[in-house]
Amino acid sequence: QKTYHIAVIAGDGIGKEIVPQAQAVLEKVTRGKADIRYEDFDLGAERYLRDGAVLPDEDLDRLKQQDAILLGAIGDPRIKAGILERGLLLKMRFELDQYVNLRPSKLYKGVVSPLADPGDIDFVVVREGTEGLYAGAGGSIRRGTPQEVATEVSINTAYGAERVIRYAFQLAMKRRRRLTLVHKKNVLTNAGDMWQRLVDQVGQEYPDVEREYLHIDASTIFMVTEPSRFDVIVTDNLFGDILTDEAGAVVGGVGYSASGCINASGTYPSMFEPIHGSAPDIAGKGIANPTAAILSAGMLLDHLGFEEEAASIERAVEDDIERSGSTQRSTEQIGRDILARL
Amino acid sequence: QKTYHIAVIAGDGIGKEIVPQAQAVLEKVTRGKADIRYEDFDLGAERYLRDGAVLPDEDLDRLKQQDAILLGAIGDPRIKAGILERGLLLKMRFELDQYVNLRPSKLYKGVVSPLADPGDIDFVVVREGTEGLYAGAGGSIRRGTPQEVATEVSINTAYGAERVIRYAFQLAMKRRRRLTLVHKKNVLTNAGDMWQRLVDQVGQEYPDVEREYLHIDASTIFMVTEPSRFDVIVTDNLFGDILTDEAGAVVGGVGYSASGCINASGTYPSMFEPIHGSAPDIAGKGIANPTAAILSAGMLLDHLGFEEEAASIERAVEDDIERSGSTQRSTEQIGRDILARL
Ligand SMILES: CC(C)[C@H](C(=O)O)[C@@H](O)C(=O)O
Ligand SMILES: CC(C)[C@H](C(=O)O)[C@@H](O)C(=O)O
Repeated sequence: QKTYHIAVIAGDGIGKEIVPQAQAVLEKVTRGKADIRYEDFDLGAERYLRDGAVLPDEDLDRLKQQDAILLGAIGDPRIKAGILERGLLLKMRFELDQYVNLRPSKLYKGVVSPLADPGDIDFVVVREGTEGLYAGAGGSIRRGTPQEVATEVSINTAYGAERVIRYAFQLAMKRRRRLTLVHKKNVLTNAGDMWQRLVDQVGQEYPDVEREYLHIDASTIFMVTEPSRFDVIVTDNLFGDILTDEAGAVVGGVGYSASGCINASGTYPSMFEPIHGSAPDIAGKGIANPTAAILSAGMLLDHLGFEEEAASIERAVEDDIERSGSTQRSTEQIGRDILARL
Repeated sequence: QKTYHIAVIAGDGIGKEIVPQAQAVLEKVTRGKADIRYEDFDLGAERYLRDGAVLPDEDLDRLKQQDAILLGAIGDPRIKAGILERGLLLKMRFELDQYVNLRPSKLYKGVVSPLADPGDIDFVVVREGTEGLYAGAGGSIRRGTPQEVATEVSINTAYGAERVIRYAFQLAMKRRRRLTLVHKKNVLTNAGDMWQRLVDQVGQEYPDVEREYLHIDASTIFMVTEPSRFDVIVTDNLFGDILTDEAGAVVGGVGYSASGCINASGTYPSMFEPIHGSAPDIAGKGIANPTAAILSAGMLLDHLGFEEEAASIERAVEDDIERSGSTQRSTEQIGRDILARL
């Protein structure tokens, strides 16, 4: 039995409630197959309010020694927007070079989509994770005066785009062999042109994958009118953020949407997290849906090479949703129901 | 009878088919009340392919002398993305200082929304039109090599944001007094923080307007799950572009979505255009829906002070849609039907 070290960042709000359910599932499916050792990291709003630390170097160094990271949710209304997001969530994605932000969207049987006629929805967004407008470049002058100027700089490199594009093509080969590049190349001509050239170039190596291009604005339309057209979408950091939230809504709520922040070259651990936030409005009530966290644990296992176990989690979740659909259940009840199906 | 000079840029694809219908409606409602003089501008793909001109200074100077501009659609698959968009559409918005990009969304009775339970949808997006990522700042180095770096710079000023924010509050006062700022201030901390401060500051002058803030990603969720929550949305150039296309889909297709690129200080003419594109796939078939163009003509009249006439166009369109809904009709037939209801 091999030992795996998993960092657990339960984080804020409902993060603390859903992560134990995901851990219980992890435990069960790996019993007798792997020795999972958890290390809890005290990161998030409470730590910050207590001692002002967001992601100290010691924590980052310890994170780097893990095999993977399981994260619940980060965010607290008491803290100014950006501090935890930039200082913790994005810092991890950048420092751990998690360049593939993988976000599957699937409409499970039993889930009610807000669309009248959703069709078969099953696609994956491959979102770039370490560049673009998320680089944190930019600044402001004359802040607080009528002459204030604030900039945000989107930094894009061939190195950074090419590696996610390649990942996306490889993924498309294992799926329905259809790849959609989403960008806004008619306006963002520098970055958009580079992305398009790289997709065309890498695409030469994958002649079996059908390619299309859509502007981000047009994509938000298709996401509502014809989401079944998508198989693999590859896009930049910001467009991926926007499109995956819309996708989450279309498949019945971000409560079912897991994600992986993957360092596909393996130099640092990858991180797995639901795409939803800390939901302060329902935190502490025991009613948060742990499904996305459980699916994230499944993606984590898949990443560590436990494909069968990962698939069994996905199946258990599918069964659970099909059976119980939109019935109101507590966090713990959903966790127990999914465990029982494993 | 006052004379009004209207520049007409029918443009490309279906633009040429829908604009005459909008003109017929303009004619009818202003008969005996205004003397409308049209000046046709030969701008768009054909002009560019013929003589390489996109928006020459002479044309721009002549445009500046008009009272308003009616535009059909611009865009052609034969031309590299960005040339007409940046060189013509955006150049007009920037050179004519059309800083308010006004985009109403309404679910008309008789139109089938892709949402199962759309509710009453009636909101306006006030999109900033002359700054942000649309500024055209940025560039690339080592183009075409593995070391390529491409940047896009979002430039935001207090001057530019404050004037659209003020416009949005004034609009909210005439409507349901609810204003939503959409941004991504947890990541784009420089620009997002400035927008939030300005909304709070201008909001002091409008204590009756209820304010909320949403991240762009969360907004794309609400646009699908609860679009009726919105009244006036104020946002930057790119987020406005994305959100209004999604909104168009939610109200049954961008075929019903008009927009105004408004220079609210009156220094240059404002421009009115459907939010849809030139639709090369259906161009020349006589089946494009002219409704958005006709509604754009209504917004143009409203802008010139013909509020009653503008309202009558909106009513005629509403009646027409309620009666004929999703029946297949030709461009000309729809135009005739709307004319008949005036
Ligand atoms: C919280 C925020 C920084 C983050 C993002 O924008 O990436 C979130 O929205 C997400 O999608 O994971
Ligand atoms: C064609 C393009 C430049 C334009 C934009 O991005 O503003 C269009 O999408 C729009 O919304 O009017």
